[in-house]
Amino acid sequence: MTKSKIKDQKSIIQNHNARVSIIGLGYVGLPLAIRFSQEGFAVTGFDIDEEKIQKLKASKTYIKHIDAEKIKTIIRNGFKATSDFSEIADVDVIIICVPTPLGIHNEPDLSFIDNTLESIKPYIKEGQLLILESTTYPGTTEEKIVPNIENAGFIVGENFFIGYSPEREDPGNLDYTTKTIPKIVSGYTENCLEMTKILYDHIVDQTVPVSSTRVAEMTKILENIHRAVNIGLVNELKMVTDKMDIDIYEVIKAASTKPFGFTPYYPGPGLGGHCIPIDPFYLTWKAKEIGMNTRFIELAGEINTAMPTYVIQKMGEALNSVKKSIKGSLILVLGLAYKKNVDDLRESPSLEIIDKLYELGANVQFCDPYFEKIPITRKYSFTLKATTLNAKSIRSADLVLLATDHDAFDYRLIQENANLIVDTRGRLNHFPKVIKA
Amino acid sequence: MTKSKIKDQKSIIQNHNARVSIIGLGYVGLPLAIRFSQEGFAVTGFDIDEEKIQKLKASKTYIKHIDAEKIKTIIRNGFKATSDFSEIADVDVIIICVPTPLGIHNEPDLSFIDNTLESIKPYIKEGQLLILESTTYPGTTEEKIVPNIENAGFIVGENFFIGYSPEREDPGNLDYTTKTIPKIVSGYTENCLEMTKILYDHIVDQTVPVSSTRVAEMTKILENIHRAVNIGLVNELKMVTDKMDIDIYEVIKAASTKPFGFTPYYPGPGLGGHCIPIDPFYLTWKAKEIGMNTRFIELAGEINTAMPTYVIQKMGEALNSVKKSIKGSLILVLGLAYKKNVDDLRESPSLEIIDKLYELGANVQFCDPYFEKIPITRKYSFTLKATTLNAKSIRSADLVLLATDHDAFDYRLIQENANLIVDTRGRLNHFPKVIKA
Repeated sequence: MTKSKIKDQKSIIQNHNARVSIIGLGYVGLPLAIRFSQEGFAVTGFDIDEEKIQKLKASKTYIKHIDAEKIKTIIRNGFKATSDFSEIADVDVIIICVPTPLGIHNEPDLSFIDNTLESIKPYIKEGQLLILESTTYPGTTEEKIVPNIENAGFIVGENFFIGYSPEREDPGNLDYTTKTIPKIVSGYTENCLEMTKILYDHIVDQTVPVSSTRVAEMTKILENIHRAVNIGLVNELKMVTDKMDIDIYEVIKAASTKPFGFTPYYPGPGLGGHCIPIDPFYLTWKAKEIGMNTRFIELAGEINTAMPTYVIQKMGEALNSVKKSIKGSLILVLGLAYKKNVDDLRESPSLEIIDKLYELGANVQFCDPYFEKIPITRKYSFTLKATTLNAKSIRSADLVLLATDHDAFDYRLIQENANLIVDTRGRLNHFPKVIKA
Repeated sequence: MTKSKIKDQKSIIQNHNARVSIIGLGYVGLPLAIRFSQEGFAVTGFDIDEEKIQKLKASKTYIKHIDAEKIKTIIRNGFKATSDFSEIADVDVIIICVPTPLGIHNEPDLSFIDNTLESIKPYIKEGQLLILESTTYPGTTEEKIVPNIENAGFIVGENFFIGYSPEREDPGNLDYTTKTIPKIVSGYTENCLEMTKILYDHIVDQTVPVSSTRVAEMTKILENIHRAVNIGLVNELKMVTDKMDIDIYEVIKAASTKPFGFTPYYPGPGLGGHCIPIDPFYLTWKAKEIGMNTRFIELAGEINTAMPTYVIQKMGEALNSVKKSIKGSLILVLGLAYKKNVDDLRESPSLEIIDKLYELGANVQFCDPYFEKIPITRKYSFTLKATTLNAKSIRSADLVLLATDHDAFDYRLIQENANLIVDTRGRLNHFPKVIKA
């Protein structure tokens, strides 16, 4: 591509004329597709999940906090959902928003990225801008994406452009949206960065350019390491203060009155979601290559993954105090989602706790306003329908476990009727029958 | 004491009539004495250091950020400094602000508190309110102060009152003062808490009562654990990203644009000051009593205390790149204080680095606008006078180490004249001769 062609390509993006494709229409890709469509871009969404495609075609939503009305609107504006990757040939921009989970040995599983690259390879063409949004270890764009595109015969930065711009979605956060969260942008070359920045400047209030794709990759990882470590720290301290008969929630609340140098993080029954429990280990894995250890990440991982077991132990102690065992007890688990007020089950510790309770011989019931039954996940397939939360169902349980403190729960009703409560969220601090876990 | 006498005692405090004594006139006690005096209280300050007493009597200051003018004013208002503890008999309130350092095995050294209790014991009397402000492990007030007073024949909560209210001083912080930083207050009994709160309500904008002295003690410890662990984390990540050729400061700056869930902490040459490197180990020590480990604290301690060695290693590598050794090189150390813009040397890593440099055979010079020579500390006694920072002194050094990034340094002058710079604060990022450490 000549310099003037590169300029043409930039002006296509500059002038809203770029046809944008989003690959992976989940928690990240769908809101992004909506944003581009809202700004007048012609958007094509790709997913390998036919069910998602059919729902979108029918103007239906599959993510609670994304309104069907929004999907109706973007479809009216020309948004198209497909699983046919040949349509990649017709777009100017390709944004990849696929999952980057961990393998069973905590190693990065980049198979979704690999498969995406494989699927689009026959259809990519000169002048396209490809951007990865998935969280991944520093070096992924340079070491994996760029060589892949160059093997296909392109010269990155000259006749094909590659950027990295990590997603910062926070499902359930009502204060910030895709538009108002500043967006880190980076590129393999100056031209790549410039195009990536021009593109996102259309849909977010602020883009933050950084000097390399590695820096952008590390930025996202740091954000999640910071959370994983701080949550690990309070989980460890919770166990210590519990033995000292000190309420960690009261301590955190008091410390939060310091107007500088302290940020509150809260303990819980374990980490959940697609980011915090997973992303940090991408750096751990990569650091091994250069002979380095990431000991804070590993310690946080160890403590956070031990939390469901700690909760079970606290439940056992609570039942023991009234001469009962877990085996044979009716246990009502409140909350399936990994955090409050969302319908997101990914990596939720509630499932692990339910699994352990079954193993120990408990009768398990659950209640979550966002789930009528427990969906089948990669790890677990329970066949359990939600119990209605009322005085009778609460009273009949030997123990109520507050696993996720959805605001929709009637806490007064719970407190008035429960025989015994184990609270993993510090929500019911001042109730006599509450054991904190 | 009858109920009505307790009421009298409360009203003395309520009505500004309490005579307040402050024991320990350092970074915590002196600002506190000033605040009480400013609010019209009759204040007596105690210290075992005769030099401090004499300076105060002469209306002089010994802490850079506390103006002599303020001392002149409080002396005019009746403030009295003494080392004669018999005067404790004439006060209503005793506030202890003595150091709580670590012993050489990282165990709490409460000797300053013990000695204070011993010194005041002959003079304490019915109705007094004694408050500890020193940072310490949860349980200190209940297990150490209360029994000590009860052994002297008083009934705490009835005819003697004990509170705990941790200091939150932050030397060099221009945004907050003793008055505007909310103050945690606690008491051994309800009466103790009430009196403590009434007292501090006179001098701070907001008091924060908590349910026990243990919670208050843990609150202060948590604040400092939070900082020690977060600084340890970025110090570890700095070493990893350095090997990946990623600038951690650029990453932290980019991550800071996330408007939720991330708080920046910065790496450095090691921890300093009287709080962060010390306080967390008070919990570590106490936790052992109940068979618990505080692994985040120990990991942070390990990584943070290894930082001076890391800095030395980076200096060795930098000199090696120009075919020089540390031995025989002239090294100019910029900054002695443990953080910028203060004259505070406590636990400063600069001293440890200078000590190591001497050991390795370097010629050391230093420059710090707050120090004309290196003061003698508990650990080190160097006889080194400050070098003037000018083009010639910078040029003559084989290597300039930026240890503390005081704003008063002329960074342009440094950059233009230095042969080689090792920057431990990320201040000189974009200069070719700068090696980050």
